[in-house]
Amino acid sequence: MATNSSSVSAPLLPSINSPEDLRRLRPEQLPQVCDELRQFLINSLSTNPGHFASNMGAVELTVALHYVFNTPYDRIVWDVGHQAYGHKILTGRRDAFSGNRKLGGLSGFPNPDESPYDTFAAGHASNSISAALGMAIASKLNNDSPARNVVAVIGDASISGGLAFEGINNAANTPNNLLIVLNDNDMSIDRNVGSLNSYLAHITTSKTYNDLRYKAFRLLRKLRLISDNGRGSILRFNNSLKSLISHQQNIFEGLNIRYFGPFDGHDLPTIIRVLNDIRDMEGPRILHLRTVKGKGYAPAEKDPSTWHAPGRFDPATGKRAESSPTPGSPIKYQDVFGNTLVELAANNDNIVAITAAMLSGTSTATMQEAFPDRVFDVGISEGHAVTFAGGLAKEGKQPFVAIYSSFLQRAYDHIIHDVALHRRRVTFCIDRAGLVGEDGPTHHGAFDLAYMRTIPNMTVAAPRDEHMLRHLLYTAQAVDCGPLAIRYPRGKGKIADWKCDMRQLEIGRGEKLSDGNDIAVLTIGTVAFSAAAAAEKARADGLSVAHYDMVFLKPLDQTIMREIADRRLDIITVEDGTVNGGLGSAVAEWLEDNNISGLRLIRLGLPDKFISQGTPAQLAALCGIDSESIYNKIKSLAAEKSACQK
Amino acid sequence: MATNSSSVSAPLLPSINSPEDLRRLRPEQLPQVCDELRQFLINSLSTNPGHFASNMGAVELTVALHYVFNTPYDRIVWDVGHQAYGHKILTGRRDAFSGNRKLGGLSGFPNPDESPYDTFAAGHASNSISAALGMAIASKLNNDSPARNVVAVIGDASISGGLAFEGINNAANTPNNLLIVLNDNDMSIDRNVGSLNSYLAHITTSKTYNDLRYKAFRLLRKLRLISDNGRGSILRFNNSLKSLISHQQNIFEGLNIRYFGPFDGHDLPTIIRVLNDIRDMEGPRILHLRTVKGKGYAPAEKDPSTWHAPGRFDPATGKRAESSPTPGSPIKYQDVFGNTLVELAANNDNIVAITAAMLSGTSTATMQEAFPDRVFDVGISEGHAVTFAGGLAKEGKQPFVAIYSSFLQRAYDHIIHDVALHRRRVTFCIDRAGLVGEDGPTHHGAFDLAYMRTIPNMTVAAPRDEHMLRHLLYTAQAVDCGPLAIRYPRGKGKIADWKCDMRQLEIGRGEKLSDGNDIAVLTIGTVAFSAAAAAEKARADGLSVAHYDMVFLKPLDQTIMREIADRRLDIITVEDGTVNGGLGSAVAEWLEDNNISGLRLIRLGLPDKFISQGTPAQLAALCGIDSESIYNKIKSLAAEKSACQK
Repeated sequence: MATNSSSVSAPLLPSINSPEDLRRLRPEQLPQVCDELRQFLINSLSTNPGHFASNMGAVELTVALHYVFNTPYDRIVWDVGHQAYGHKILTGRRDAFSGNRKLGGLSGFPNPDESPYDTFAAGHASNSISAALGMAIASKLNNDSPARNVVAVIGDASISGGLAFEGINNAANTPNNLLIVLNDNDMSIDRNVGSLNSYLAHITTSKTYNDLRYKAFRLLRKLRLISDNGRGSILRFNNSLKSLISHQQNIFEGLNIRYFGPFDGHDLPTIIRVLNDIRDMEGPRILHLRTVKGKGYAPAEKDPSTWHAPGRFDPATGKRAESSPTPGSPIKYQDVFGNTLVELAANNDNIVAITAAMLSGTSTATMQEAFPDRVFDVGISEGHAVTFAGGLAKEGKQPFVAIYSSFLQRAYDHIIHDVALHRRRVTFCIDRAGLVGEDGPTHHGAFDLAYMRTIPNMTVAAPRDEHMLRHLLYTAQAVDCGPLAIRYPRGKGKIADWKCDMRQLEIGRGEKLSDGNDIAVLTIGTVAFSAAAAAEKARADGLSVAHYDMVFLKPLDQTIMREIADRRLDIITVEDGTVNGGLGSAVAEWLEDNNISGLRLIRLGLPDKFISQGTPAQLAALCGIDSESIYNKIKSLAAEKSACQK
Repeated sequence: MATNSSSVSAPLLPSINSPEDLRRLRPEQLPQVCDELRQFLINSLSTNPGHFASNMGAVELTVALHYVFNTPYDRIVWDVGHQAYGHKILTGRRDAFSGNRKLGGLSGFPNPDESPYDTFAAGHASNSISAALGMAIASKLNNDSPARNVVAVIGDASISGGLAFEGINNAANTPNNLLIVLNDNDMSIDRNVGSLNSYLAHITTSKTYNDLRYKAFRLLRKLRLISDNGRGSILRFNNSLKSLISHQQNIFEGLNIRYFGPFDGHDLPTIIRVLNDIRDMEGPRILHLRTVKGKGYAPAEKDPSTWHAPGRFDPATGKRAESSPTPGSPIKYQDVFGNTLVELAANNDNIVAITAAMLSGTSTATMQEAFPDRVFDVGISEGHAVTFAGGLAKEGKQPFVAIYSSFLQRAYDHIIHDVALHRRRVTFCIDRAGLVGEDGPTHHGAFDLAYMRTIPNMTVAAPRDEHMLRHLLYTAQAVDCGPLAIRYPRGKGKIADWKCDMRQLEIGRGEKLSDGNDIAVLTIGTVAFSAAAAAEKARADGLSVAHYDMVFLKPLDQTIMREIADRRLDIITVEDGTVNGGLGSAVAEWLEDNNISGLRLIRLGLPDKFISQGTPAQLAALCGIDSESIYNKIKSLAAEKSACQK
């Protein structure tokens, strides 16, 4: 099951502490580095889980880039960053890699605050070309000498995002020497969709033109008939060649980006040769590499979707620790969503589901199995997903749009302009809301409560548990309340018997979960569990704590708020979204607007900073929204109150 | 100067009260309708200003679409909507058109709440393809009979937006019969940029292939060798033709969208013939029409940028009322920005400016004239603009990103992920913030204060006047405070002598503009003028009103807040952004977080709904943030206080 190590020579990877060390090796030593890198990834990720298949597929590409380019002076901009582990390991973080995705350890994505080799934020797809173009143009403006090379590495899924297109469209239009490497494994997390993808497949099958052109270029260069530096002559060369061989419709060349490829992305000598050849050319270029997700590890090559982030596994057998969920135990929130949507869709023909390259991640796949014609995976294009939903809703369909919270940020304007403005009935099923844990700051769903609340016509809700999620989904298709946002967390719930009967909720109505006379704890979403435990513990101390689940952030339950004000309860709000703008702010506004004085309000939530990676439990404690923190706040608030009353 | 009317027959337009009436006309009568429509537009817009040149260019297209398609059963989705006046006039709103863009009158953009002919929100570019695709697919799912045609009309500037690309990419991938009409006038508000645009220009110059293909198709159809309905046969036809004539690199066909064109968009018989021919074809299609912005009115054809929205003008002479600003009078905020940036850039080589197809609208053009190599107009691609700025900032440049507030919403995620996360030094110069007036709900800059405030690392400021704008811009390039948002309104300021010396402001420091002992009015931005007038008037009534200009929404000035709390002043906050989440919310949070009881807080701002069109003064009064409303709040708050004290 191990990779095919080609030699028995002394290991090389332990002596590579920077790309400088790598660049001192002879070309024929590099395949061994690749083998060792793969073995390192297998060993490391089998015990400390992370993104597996995409990193395995990018090994040769990574080695080649650091071998050919003078990093970190030259810039490599990774898109998404699912493929940057090899890069981290080769750039001085081999030993630190055991702390990958852990609190205080390495970020699972490129992180400029972590290393000068990590040039730009990655995690949200399709940004690499725009960012790299900025760097390339800055370098021109700065007259950097020697000329600084900037390379954007983007996957075939990411390149379907509108941002990538905007980047390409602009790259062609400004003097720059950007190199775009298209890492084409014909996959995103799930299989790719969209016509651009079909297009890329087509290019590969008809590679004659590009092969021929590239070979001719190399020949002419060898004969010194063209030079690397003269852009004019290269352009003339390209044009003349085009006029000779004109069967190829190349979309990139149509946009004035010179195209090279496709090449086998695991053929290291070829990649290195090509990179050397095109490294110092001027003008924007695209190098198209075909790679295999999971390359070098048979189970991952066979099932790359599952092996995108497989969790722990046995390197020898490929058996995944999480592969068999315990029957009768709680399931993931996403699966409660997926299964419930199928139940509802069976009785409501208008329901359709939309996701953006998160078919399995949001369990919209469950709906797709049941009703394939009513599910639309639009690929990495969150903005389109939402506007498209607006169009469907305009014609009477009831779209459920399932997108991770932090990725839905891409569609903020589309939510306002194409859905909320005309009060279209679109249900946003916001997965991965709140703290997501190991994926860190780019992936936490921190802002949805705050930004959704300020959008007119929007109803905002969060279920405290699986049953409430089912009730909310049922309500979404039973009542037209205009656009409705339902946000729920990553991972498993707590109720084994999640499949309850569903009922219609009253919009804007919360629930009192427990009563008390001193302090009211107000929660939204699954932080209800921590708050309930904290209240229980405080009651054991003799404190009288009420717990209200608001269920709806907007509209805020006026009856509950009035009850609390009338009973003169001090308030602690708890939410797993940014503390500015969410539930705590809504309650503060309510108290001020209603001229309620003399009640204390303590707002708990995510602080006004970006939250690092760590386990969800660690991060909740750090942010002061775990059970212990809430308990401590209840205690200190009670003490404060008791002190005042003395 | 009038359009060339081809006949002296009785007028037709007055009898067209719906497209049904239009469709009853004979084809040879339609040119007369076009002439009358143009004359109507000239007469109407010369006295009641609006978008001129783009509407003049879309006359034949509009008439043809309503003539060929069975509207409103068939759907026309206009992109942006700068070209939908003719559509409004032909769809029962001819008389109402005198109220265009006025309070209580017609929206200046398509508005589904106004007419069944207006199918979708327009105003933010590039959404038509996604929305229309949703409608087309909904129609398939609904089994509409007869088949419903859906047409997206998109300009060549809008199609460069990433959202349009996402839409096209998905349109090719789902069964649908979407027709995309590309209205190509080689212009956005300013001249177009980007490689896609060069590409469109190229198509036009090499139209042999498409002409030939289209003619061959018509011939084969005439001979009944192919039918309209058999998609397979058409595809085979296209493929075989392609193999014969393969010189054309067609980007749309590369993406599996069938392409027809380019045709002269003012050649009415041709457009109608082509539309009839391709109307009932299955599968996504693009019809490419070349049009002339301002067509039929010589001054507008000559200078389409100026005539995009020319204001009032004399139809006979083309003389614009606003063409000569009074020397020595206040200038627009955008010009204060543009001129000041040039001053700063002259002394700071790192300053670069970025805009997204708003070069003249934001007066970034001024900087471009002075430093052409340091200005980047990226076309309609706000997301790219921001990520690109992040890349520039990473390499030490100081990007100033000038984008209208409501359009910057498109870049919400890019601001978070590509700028704020790693605290890049990018200055957002947010033009058209607050109420913009006649452009209405899609264009009001309502949300920027609220959403910017919740982004970690972000500093948020708004100048009360032109001098403060200059100080803020100076400060932005003098101090590295990470990402900084400076928002300022549409239109002119109030200070003739705007060109003051500049000074460095302390980040997070507000200013007390006037003192008082009963009530503190806290403002952010140019509402300071209305608040100052209100305070002055209240003082005349004997009330003691302090006025603080917070200058910075974030960080909120702790010294001012502490002073107000210590002096036990009741508070009125005023802002021209949504009342939920902005200054009022920040103050409410501060009061609660600091356990300040017994002070009243009145929060004035834009209510939690979408605000219609109207003059800025009318809308400010409707929203309760004009001087009179603020004065009334001061009075009632004082009365309340006095009643309590009795």
